[in-house]
Amino acid sequence: MTTIATLGPKGTFSHEAALSYKKNSKIAFNRTVWDVFDTVSSKKADLGIVPLENSLSGTVGLTIDALMRFNLNIVDELILPILHNLASYGTLKTIKTVYIHPVTYEQSERSLRKLFPKADYIETSSNGDSAKRLLKTKDKTKAAVIPSLAAKIYGLKVIKKNIQDNKSNLTKFIVISYKAAKRTGKDRTTITIYPQTDKPGLLYNLLGEFAKRSINLTKIESVPSKGRLGDYIFYIEFEGHKDDENVKKTLKAIESNFFLKVLGSYQRKY
Amino acid sequence: MTTIATLGPKGTFSHEAALSYKKNSKIAFNRTVWDVFDTVSSKKADLGIVPLENSLSGTVGLTIDALMRFNLNIVDELILPILHNLASYGTLKTIKTVYIHPVTYEQSERSLRKLFPKADYIETSSNGDSAKRLLKTKDKTKAAVIPSLAAKIYGLKVIKKNIQDNKSNLTKFIVISYKAAKRTGKDRTTITIYPQTDKPGLLYNLLGEFAKRSINLTKIESVPSKGRLGDYIFYIEFEGHKDDENVKKTLKAIESNFFLKVLGSYQRKY
Repeated sequence: MTTIATLGPKGTFSHEAALSYKKNSKIAFNRTVWDVFDTVSSKKADLGIVPLENSLSGTVGLTIDALMRFNLNIVDELILPILHNLASYGTLKTIKTVYIHPVTYEQSERSLRKLFPKADYIETSSNGDSAKRLLKTKDKTKAAVIPSLAAKIYGLKVIKKNIQDNKSNLTKFIVISYKAAKRTGKDRTTITIYPQTDKPGLLYNLLGEFAKRSINLTKIESVPSKGRLGDYIFYIEFEGHKDDENVKKTLKAIESNFFLKVLGSYQRKY
Repeated sequence: MTTIATLGPKGTFSHEAALSYKKNSKIAFNRTVWDVFDTVSSKKADLGIVPLENSLSGTVGLTIDALMRFNLNIVDELILPILHNLASYGTLKTIKTVYIHPVTYEQSERSLRKLFPKADYIETSSNGDSAKRLLKTKDKTKAAVIPSLAAKIYGLKVIKKNIQDNKSNLTKFIVISYKAAKRTGKDRTTITIYPQTDKPGLLYNLLGEFAKRSINLTKIESVPSKGRLGDYIFYIEFEGHKDDENVKKTLKAIESNFFLKVLGSYQRKY
């Protein structure tokens, strides 16, 4: 049986991602992204699933950081719609306190303030934790904003569905492993590049290696190199597998000028 | 007297940034980044100060989002070292519960787990809030991780200084206004570009407009366009002022092919 390490406790969106990725697997819950990487690295789990970016709140810095520090492979990606639900033992009129994870708050703030302009918002450490705290009180003045999976697991009643501010709210999760994924013909590759110098045209010349071989970039980000602002590492995703001929040539050309780390090639889903 | 809108309550790093930016100004505290933009937009404050990126945790997505949605100008940047301190009425031996903001937790987790492997970490809504919650309890089993400004304002005793995991931890704040900043000769300009199409070489050709005029890029990020992963807006910072001749030509060339928004030109500090 496959063991998948992900962010806990039960009922988080990461848990939902892990369940949708591979049915009948054993889930190993971890407190942080770093711990998920650690669990996979030490082979206590076969795979790890962590969020990489959200269509509203952007890239998860901790995941990029862990990708650079550990020697693991990205072997897959998966997209999950992120829908927030209001659960309570009371009604919209009785609620005075709302348990909510900070990222969920960011994504639902305007709706919530309209619903409950005077409520207290108690920040929790995860969406699963919000559910657990509501369950513990059973108080009609309390509510929690939670995924539908958490409502199901903890037996909580949803009194208002899809309360996030933006109807379209997606999170891209990546699957990590100590093994590498096979070429499928419709792949994506993720790399990081340490330029080590800073001069006009550096990134332009770097991207020229992709452009001249018609390789399509799908994401680029200058991530601050630890400890120094203005000293950046480039995080780049592009279409193609590291074993494709044109990708091989591109990576070879880059390697002769920059410090390159290939984080993985995997089947792309969009 | 200048009124500066920033993130509250008293004692946050944003408060410290506002105080260090302009002495003897009136500070208007806001709950969220969005609220700071709203306060400046409606001219209830002359300036706004918000975090843009941290050298460890990366770009603040909410700030990029607000920059794109409001019509305000970036008029300055400032860098603040982020040092976390442990405050308590007790000693290292008596502490069982720690009040801490989630971002502060990210930046201090490994140190804290070594110090207090069994403590409960109660997440707060800001570093100022952590201080206020400790102040309220006066309990020797409680601690809070706070900026030195918060320790000073709330009269809390620091029992261990600089507990963040990485010695070098910097946050770049931006100053926003409804007016624009004047050219200083050592400037930076921030723009966003909506490519509206996706094909190999698009970003390469875009960056070519900078490279051929020897304009140095200092940051680039593909930000998910609201609601769709894989549909990106480019957030770009480069050296130069929008009134410089070579910058004017570059922006004109970009505008003929892409939807461009200039977020501001301002004196650069690094």
